[in-house]
Amino acid sequence: MSSNYVNDSLALHTDLYQINMAESYWADGIHNRKSVFELFFRRLPFGNGYAVFAGLERVLDFLRDFHFSESDLAYLRDELGYKEDFIAYLKDIRFTGTVHSMVEGELVFANEPIIRVEAPLAEAQLIETALLNIVNYQTLIATKASRIKQVVKDEVVMEFGSRRAHEIDAAVWGARATFIGGIEATSNVLAGKRFNIPVAGTHGHSMVQAYKNEYEAFHSYAQRHKDCIFLVDTYNTLKIGIPTAIQVAKDLGDQINFRGVRLDSGDIAFLSKEARKMLDEAGFKDAQVVVSNDLDEYTILNLKAQGAKVDVWGIGTKLITAYDQPALGAVYKIVSIENTTGEMEDTIKISSTTEKVTTPGRKKLYRIIDRENGKAEGDYITMYDENPASEKRIKMFHPVHTFVSKFVTNFEAKDLHVKVVEQGKIIYDNPTLLQMRDYAKESLGLLWDEYKRSLNPEEYPVDLSQKCWDNKMRNIREVQEMVEEFIDGEE
Amino acid sequence: MSSNYVNDSLALHTDLYQINMAESYWADGIHNRKSVFELFFRRLPFGNGYAVFAGLERVLDFLRDFHFSESDLAYLRDELGYKEDFIAYLKDIRFTGTVHSMVEGELVFANEPIIRVEAPLAEAQLIETALLNIVNYQTLIATKASRIKQVVKDEVVMEFGSRRAHEIDAAVWGARATFIGGIEATSNVLAGKRFNIPVAGTHGHSMVQAYKNEYEAFHSYAQRHKDCIFLVDTYNTLKIGIPTAIQVAKDLGDQINFRGVRLDSGDIAFLSKEARKMLDEAGFKDAQVVVSNDLDEYTILNLKAQGAKVDVWGIGTKLITAYDQPALGAVYKIVSIENTTGEMEDTIKISSTTEKVTTPGRKKLYRIIDRENGKAEGDYITMYDENPASEKRIKMFHPVHTFVSKFVTNFEAKDLHVKVVEQGKIIYDNPTLLQMRDYAKESLGLLWDEYKRSLNPEEYPVDLSQKCWDNKMRNIREVQEMVEEFIDGEE
Repeated sequence: MSSNYVNDSLALHTDLYQINMAESYWADGIHNRKSVFELFFRRLPFGNGYAVFAGLERVLDFLRDFHFSESDLAYLRDELGYKEDFIAYLKDIRFTGTVHSMVEGELVFANEPIIRVEAPLAEAQLIETALLNIVNYQTLIATKASRIKQVVKDEVVMEFGSRRAHEIDAAVWGARATFIGGIEATSNVLAGKRFNIPVAGTHGHSMVQAYKNEYEAFHSYAQRHKDCIFLVDTYNTLKIGIPTAIQVAKDLGDQINFRGVRLDSGDIAFLSKEARKMLDEAGFKDAQVVVSNDLDEYTILNLKAQGAKVDVWGIGTKLITAYDQPALGAVYKIVSIENTTGEMEDTIKISSTTEKVTTPGRKKLYRIIDRENGKAEGDYITMYDENPASEKRIKMFHPVHTFVSKFVTNFEAKDLHVKVVEQGKIIYDNPTLLQMRDYAKESLGLLWDEYKRSLNPEEYPVDLSQKCWDNKMRNIREVQEMVEEFIDGEE
Repeated sequence: MSSNYVNDSLALHTDLYQINMAESYWADGIHNRKSVFELFFRRLPFGNGYAVFAGLERVLDFLRDFHFSESDLAYLRDELGYKEDFIAYLKDIRFTGTVHSMVEGELVFANEPIIRVEAPLAEAQLIETALLNIVNYQTLIATKASRIKQVVKDEVVMEFGSRRAHEIDAAVWGARATFIGGIEATSNVLAGKRFNIPVAGTHGHSMVQAYKNEYEAFHSYAQRHKDCIFLVDTYNTLKIGIPTAIQVAKDLGDQINFRGVRLDSGDIAFLSKEARKMLDEAGFKDAQVVVSNDLDEYTILNLKAQGAKVDVWGIGTKLITAYDQPALGAVYKIVSIENTTGEMEDTIKISSTTEKVTTPGRKKLYRIIDRENGKAEGDYITMYDENPASEKRIKMFHPVHTFVSKFVTNFEAKDLHVKVVEQGKIIYDNPTLLQMRDYAKESLGLLWDEYKRSLNPEEYPVDLSQKCWDNKMRNIREVQEMVEEFIDGEE
């Protein structure tokens, strides 16, 4: 490391302005005012019809351990010039708030509160950057994985992207996110160890080159790896790679379990069909064709349309980097704050970019499920004190085109928020990854197919309750009046 | 964590197949054969004319600490089923090889050996994934930063991307990479602490909302942050934001150093010009206009063409994720290996995708600099035992279109490789980040402008020496003959 400071906390994994704001709050004595922040994104990624939430486990790890270490404080004081009085305040700060969150694997749509933080103002501010950083990436990757899985359907997908992931955390936590999204295994062994994800892999070209000879390389590999898949494109796939794989499989016979071949270059549509033919003719009808090489849902759809014969898809770069849209734009906005007399007041952010106008107030989020067909009618955002479950009939209307509306009856209103932190104490036990993945699958079962197709899906309804809508309009009017008064005052 | 294993080493941050291959090598007793691997990429990212190498510091950290911990070994044995004999071998493995590398900040082009690893075969194999993961990301981001800086020129750029970076490592190491590429500061405080990078930041919308009033918010902020920049778009930039900023600056007068305003939404071209006018008219001619909001080199070029008045650019998502091309495709290929009689033999990987054919042999890389004008004539890849510095005249020819050639005389041949690890011992002291950044700037000075423009740059020559070319052709012929023989044998 270039500096003399040790790396002993993650509290400084934040934008400088969060610390600046916390300092102002503290100096003004408003740092402990109760505040409510919500985390949400404004647009679904990849043109997909839904997203899959992931990242909660690491968010909870971060909150549990939230503190400024001695070396953090020394840096803030000695290098950045924060004054001793504020440093003394930071020294003892811990996260003492209450957090509600969706569970990992939950389907999430635009403008829905994924996480709601209720905490003293300065604490809520200081954790913003880390929460966004974690949730944005993991949710993006879980969503990409689920999207790919929708196209692949029943074949197996393996995540192979570590070498192109954005540094170590992205490889490891990204592998975890792909698993939640529905991918069967990863090549990253550290992810396997930390999260108990199945790991998979064959061998590389360098092994063939090291033996200078495919026969020897495959033969040697099979000795220690009885369940073997051979990589056949080091020299020439059809002329020498596949014939050699078959030869080794025949020569070793019952000593091994010849699982198949992997193709990593060339025309996959053509080569996979030829490979299938050659394997079948040699009597290896159960041997699989594994393919890799810059795949994603678009190439897979095309390969399938061309009749490619593929049993296992190895997907690297385009999955682990979310190549076609490598950022989810989740934001974290204050929606309510305690005023000088101790009452909570809702607050709004106005913007000439209309989609950036926030929805004020502490809110709840329900999935409205039709009891007759078991399908989701849409999601319903309400003020905290509303309880749609107690109503016989609710009116759902589009949050932009408000004339689009429907009445829903005979529904179940499923509360999508779980209390995960209570006054600073983590009270949530993470399910296993398999449970998260199963939950995501189950949740997809609630959605009509129209919301799940990869191209031009129908827009899933996410509606505000009448009360929530009225509150938003009132807040907008108040700001407009304030602006008018300001201008009048100027003149 | 879901599993019971502790997180106490990074050796498992690898693809499973590396461990499988190492096992086969070990079982066959060839794990200690001398091998040479080279790390390079095949195409420059973003259509840029050059890349900026970054990542060496973390690569060296990884190699220094390379070992399988007790919990790693337990996982490999108990969960993945590796046998005790191989586990015993892994237990004592350390990296004992020798590594040559470019220095961080060096300009690098397609197909150039960035890092050359000479190590026992199994060790060289086991470190592949981590090296690629680290170098691919950091080099990608340093390159994106440098590319943006070419467009921005003399104004200041700040990196604001933590919330959209791919998890924590990407935010922190990415900020470091942008600094090497020429960015002036980051908002990420942890990156500032670990790497001694200047950190910067203003305040957010939530602060204005917390005070419910821009005047109070700005006033309060300025009390603790005398050098203050106010965010003016929470309610209405021109009607209330900027006038309030000016009012606070006037009211506080000499008590503060009013540095300017930040615009984060709306039409930046228009708003920046209006902001400039308003600040000037109020007498704040030195106050700066800071802008942020999904910027990259393309939008900046356009904003400049529209006459936007911007002093400081805050760039987040598109920089830290390399949004328009979020992966660099560096690979790590074996180029030479010891044979049964102890001699080194070169090796090649053939592919029907011609750009995937490797260049065999242990090689060196020189930058050929014209002594008269001080500009780079191109890079020159030679076999290890060649020394172009001792030659009066060298012939450089295009590695694909070989008829394109030139003779160069009166040149300096700068060896771009530095020995950084010798028989497992790290012998390289990392320069400071500022030195790396200065080195990158200096290196750019060697390049004609034609290689540096952001759109359609000229292709910088990267040529093979005659000896290197002949060696490659000989290796290709040998493989072709092997394939022919194989087919003859089949018939």
